Amino acid sequence: MIVIKGGVTSPKGFMASGVKAGIKKSGRADLALLYSEVPAVAAAAFTTNRFQASPVKISKMHLKNETHQAIIVNSGNANCANGSVGDRDALKMAELAGKALLLDKREVLVASTGIIGVYMPLEKIEKAMPELAAELSETKGTRFAEAIMTTDTVKKELAVKIKLGKVTVTIGGACKGVGMIYPLMNTEKHATMLAFLTTDAVITKRMLSLSLAEAIGSSFNMISVDGDMSTNDSSFIMANGLAKNREINSKGGDYRKFTEALKSVTNELAKKLARDGEGATKFIEIYVTGAKNETDAKAIARKISASNLLKCAVYGEDPNWGRIIAAAGSGGVSFDPDKVDVYLGGLKALSNGMSVKGLDKEKARKLFTKRDVHIKVGLKSGRYKATAWTCDLSKEYVAINSEYST
Amino acid sequence: MIVIKGGVTSPKGFMASGVKAGIKKSGRADLALLYSEVPAVAAAAFTTNRFQASPVKISKMHLKNETHQAIIVNSGNANCANGSVGDRDALKMAELAGKALLLDKREVLVASTGIIGVYMPLEKIEKAMPELAAELSETKGTRFAEAIMTTDTVKKELAVKIKLGKVTVTIGGACKGVGMIYPLMNTEKHATMLAFLTTDAVITKRMLSLSLAEAIGSSFNMISVDGDMSTNDSSFIMANGLAKNREINSKGGDYRKFTEALKSVTNELAKKLARDGEGATKFIEIYVTGAKNETDAKAIARKISASNLLKCAVYGEDPNWGRIIAAAGSGGVSFDPDKVDVYLGGLKALSNGMSVKGLDKEKARKLFTKRDVHIKVGLKSGRYKATAWTCDLSKEYVAINSEYST
Repeated sequence: MIVIKGGVTSPKGFMASGVKAGIKKSGRADLALLYSEVPAVAAAAFTTNRFQASPVKISKMHLKNETHQAIIVNSGNANCANGSVGDRDALKMAELAGKALLLDKREVLVASTGIIGVYMPLEKIEKAMPELAAELSETKGTRFAEAIMTTDTVKKELAVKIKLGKVTVTIGGACKGVGMIYPLMNTEKHATMLAFLTTDAVITKRMLSLSLAEAIGSSFNMISVDGDMSTNDSSFIMANGLAKNREINSKGGDYRKFTEALKSVTNELAKKLARDGEGATKFIEIYVTGAKNETDAKAIARKISASNLLKCAVYGEDPNWGRIIAAAGSGGVSFDPDKVDVYLGGLKALSNGMSVKGLDKEKARKLFTKRDVHIKVGLKSGRYKATAWTCDLSKEYVAINSEYST
Repeated sequence: MIVIKGGVTSPKGFMASGVKAGIKKSGRADLALLYSEVPAVAAAAFTTNRFQASPVKISKMHLKNETHQAIIVNSGNANCANGSVGDRDALKMAELAGKALLLDKREVLVASTGIIGVYMPLEKIEKAMPELAAELSETKGTRFAEAIMTTDTVKKELAVKIKLGKVTVTIGGACKGVGMIYPLMNTEKHATMLAFLTTDAVITKRMLSLSLAEAIGSSFNMISVDGDMSTNDSSFIMANGLAKNREINSKGGDYRKFTEALKSVTNELAKKLARDGEGATKFIEIYVTGAKNETDAKAIARKISASNLLKCAVYGEDPNWGRIIAAAGSGGVSFDPDKVDVYLGGLKALSNGMSVKGLDKEKARKLFTKRDVHIKVGLKSGRYKATAWTCDLSKEYVAINSEYST
């Protein structure tokens, strides 16, 4: 596998665009379009929030279609809590994109991110549609990645190439989302984080869906910025087959290779999200080992990643590791506390449930002054592992989120 | 029921004290003692955190004793993650208090709050013990309430009087805890919040335990400051029988009356905790109605109370109510989103799952400028209700918690 400079338009046959429709008050780009020149199979995963935004409902419905060719995305408005009006507006977005691209509306998927409870300014989308379609280009992946941003400070995109047999297959991706981030998506189910993945691989819709589920479980579903789960989280993948590899239709070697490459893309995109978390000054990786099963390992890693107190400690460069064990113990997972080890970077702070005497506090503090902070919790009760990613909780996070809607 | 000025020493036969033992770097009072002149029955509830501080373990063990006469409490050190050394130290605290008061160690309960993973400076406690015992007085309830404080800005105490038959029974209480607050205690199980309740009622140990469980379920277990559950949360109650009412030994009228009075005390103390949450500038009450059962009502209210985004919005006086529904939907509780109403104070923002058109934003903003913010979520799916209390998330919270241990 090689990582290349690129994004959603790196695989063959994909075009993208991004324009300013005027949905955002800031006047920045807020409407984006992703298009495959030929029909593609698609899979997606959505938020498990009980409140589901209208674009989530419409995309779920449209996913029943066999093939797809486009995804329309806006930032600045979540189109959530707008009831049947919202559903009609999300459907209308698909219709407008379909009309511009000569596609049936069911071939178009929809995603939105932004404020909840404000009706969608559909006339602005309608007005911007000709420009959005006209701008579509194989070189505009970056414009797409920019137009989907809300409080993001950097665009997030990536692409990789792998060989399946003698054929080169490319996977590209872009994502956004740096607040209301604690996603738990499944292939039935929303943070507002949005991810768009593309590939030119030949793969069945079913295998694509399984591969996406595997990739999301250890990437997007393992990040936290604030512990708040959004109503709009969506991850999409389209595979248009233009690489002409032998079809991936079962869990064989090619499926494994493809899925590992997809995981690399989603893991890197997930880390980019955590690193750009609202107000973040530091990136935190939490590695849990020795759990009885994968569910426990993930639950503990996720619980630690959502600890406000730990995140404040990292912001303050204060190695107050007691907050790690308090969080680990509060996740409802059963383990033996008297076996637990905690490491800050390479420094052992807790050994078999007991604080290490003579811990070098200055060394510990220095580890917390780094841009990347690594925490390891060894449960020593089994062979399962999980990694979660988060960022520190800064005064800037509070500033950003106390001045959002007004 | 009447509310009187007072605290843990308001019921007959209770004495308390608080001294400076030098555990806290700040040099403020950090060691407290509560004493009943005669043997009392006791009940307690502890954290459900998998990591349990040593004083929690020792108190659980000592609760098996039939009667109790004292509780020793320190602030500044949680005595958690100190393994067998910590257990020995917590036991030694009970022994030292027992020795000074001529009690068996099993008649003494123990509680600690402060930093995790630092060994207890037992020599300081030993040295302070004579003064602590000598200071015991019926007029020192307030000293007790002060000595248990950590980052609390105000002491929290309360007392009420009720009539059971012709007899006056008094219930008093004191509590602390303004960070690492998201308790879920049961009569088996820790935030670091600590609560100490006293009464002169005649009541069996079993009925006292049931009454405490009822009172905690709708009070301390319904508050959140930061969503972090502590390893030390403990609530204790001692009943010494000096009021000489007819013994409460079943769930009759007197039990109901006593429990309602106890609930009043724990509810008021719980609200005091939320109001004094670290960095808090506002108090937030979340009232959920129409749930299918009590568990669902509580789960949704608690989930909303733990939303960083909502808490930042309240801090910023920004009525961004979409964050309420995002939180409500992420608690794993099933309900019909298309039936849900949301009120900000008396103002309806969401009606049957749809944002209210023409919502008076200025009026909504004004409601968020008040010291007390009231939010109501009507699920309209059943007849169960729950109330949770929290505070806003301010830059000051981050400042406090990024500079704690060093």
